[in-house]
Amino acid sequence: VTTSSPEARVRELGLRVPDYSDPPYGGRYGTMKPFHRSGRLLMLSGMTPETRDGTMLHPGRLGRDVTVEQGYAAARLAAVNLLGLVRLALGTLDEVAFVVSTLDFVVTTEDFTDGHLVSEGAADLLIEVFGAEAARATRATIGAMSLSRGNCFEIWATVECRSAAPEEPR
Amino acid sequence: VTTSSPEARVRELGLRVPDYSDPPYGGRYGTMKPFHRSGRLLMLSGMTPETRDGTMLHPGRLGRDVTVEQGYAAARLAAVNLLGLVRLALGTLDEVAFVVSTLDFVVTTEDFTDGHLVSEGAADLLIEVFGAEAARATRATIGAMSLSRGNCFEIWATVECRSAAPEEPR
Amino acid sequence: VTTSSPEARVRELGLRVPDYSDPPYGGRYGTMKPFHRSGRLLMLSGMTPETRDGTMLHPGRLGRDVTVEQGYAAARLAAVNLLGLVRLALGTLDEVAFVVSTLDFVVTTEDFTDGHLVSEGAADLLIEVFGAEAARATRATIGAMSLSRGNCFEIWATVECRSAAPEEPR
Repeated sequence: VTTSSPEARVRELGLRVPDYSDPPYGGRYGTMKPFHRSGRLLMLSGMTPETRDGTMLHPGRLGRDVTVEQGYAAARLAAVNLLGLVRLALGTLDEVAFVVSTLDFVVTTEDFTDGHLVSEGAADLLIEVFGAEAARATRATIGAMSLSRGNCFEIWATVECRSAAPEEPR
Repeated sequence: VTTSSPEARVRELGLRVPDYSDPPYGGRYGTMKPFHRSGRLLMLSGMTPETRDGTMLHPGRLGRDVTVEQGYAAARLAAVNLLGLVRLALGTLDEVAFVVSTLDFVVTTEDFTDGHLVSEGAADLLIEVFGAEAARATRATIGAMSLSRGNCFEIWATVECRSAAPEEPR
Repeated sequence: VTTSSPEARVRELGLRVPDYSDPPYGGRYGTMKPFHRSGRLLMLSGMTPETRDGTMLHPGRLGRDVTVEQGYAAARLAAVNLLGLVRLALGTLDEVAFVVSTLDFVVTTEDFTDGHLVSEGAADLLIEVFGAEAARATRATIGAMSLSRGNCFEIWATVECRSAAPEEPR
């Protein structure tokens, strides 16, 4: 058990969290919004295991050309990217109260049945950063036919913040 | 930038938004509910590119028998149908504050990796109607093995309303 | 129309709802959390048609080695398991106000297009227990490439509770 803050743990772990303010998030996949806040909930767009220049980590299909270890690493990178979205939304990871849910998609063959071992890569990273109490989230892992650009993994997450979103004019 | 209301834009665009009150929504896919309101959030059932008589637009599989342009058109129709659900829920599209999220499913071959170009058809339609500020939503696009009845696209959306749902007895 | 409570209906129906407190939920699929409460919303982890010892009901693929009737039965079992998660979260099923949404995944062949007939098994069970008014939920049914361990069905559900979650220290 550690008592350091998520931002401190990111530094301790030496994670390279992408900055989605510069260059601005978006473009590669169309007119998406990175996040939406509603009350205490923070909904995040799907994140893939790509660097900001578009290089994919272990693209392909689990059960054929991507191993479970590689898929785990890809899922971990997708979760690091998710941290960048959370920072963009909240300014700091320290405003996260809980990771509410992650719906994880893994590109697989028909015979591959270990998707949950792949998505564990994202879950473990989030627990390293936020601690088990805050980051252990509800989850479902689904084997997909395909993902955009050939990515092998995508995470679709919702987070609960410490405070509610400021009221916007409606 | 336009300042006309979403309902006015629907008229300007000449969109034929289905009326799910007559005949009532449901039946084809079982005991589904069209929408659920909880606080300011409006959750909507999955919508497919079908007319009310069940005719599907471009059924099939991206990468084999449906082109990206056809998939885009199908996604656009699914979003038009989604407008019908929102009207059923709120009475008017003008009560929408934001499109919060869409989880988009595209039926693809193993090799197809342009699902995001397909779901852009739905995103573009929503932006035409609600404007970019309100409609640019968090999104993930997933390549699916199959969808009901052979549809090539399905959108699962959540909307934030201008006001909270009336309290129901619980 | 019945006026008995959900807990009474579970007894009348003779459903064997698993107790996820003993042995504790988790382990088989990694570091997942069974549920998360946020305000009135209760988010639940994906549930599959498995007994607590890991025996799967009708594993395989719709359209090839699982019939629609078998898939329906599997979906029903997944929904019974979901009841166990709800009890773990709320103490009693009688605290459920509404089933908000279910996102249902069915493992299918490319040609199978009756996923909605499979997920109806879960929907019907929830309506038998909670009544149509409370349980008829927004839904999407997606044909998946694969699910963990070879399960043919998974349900990812959100429930609205009668009262808001107790405030936790943040």
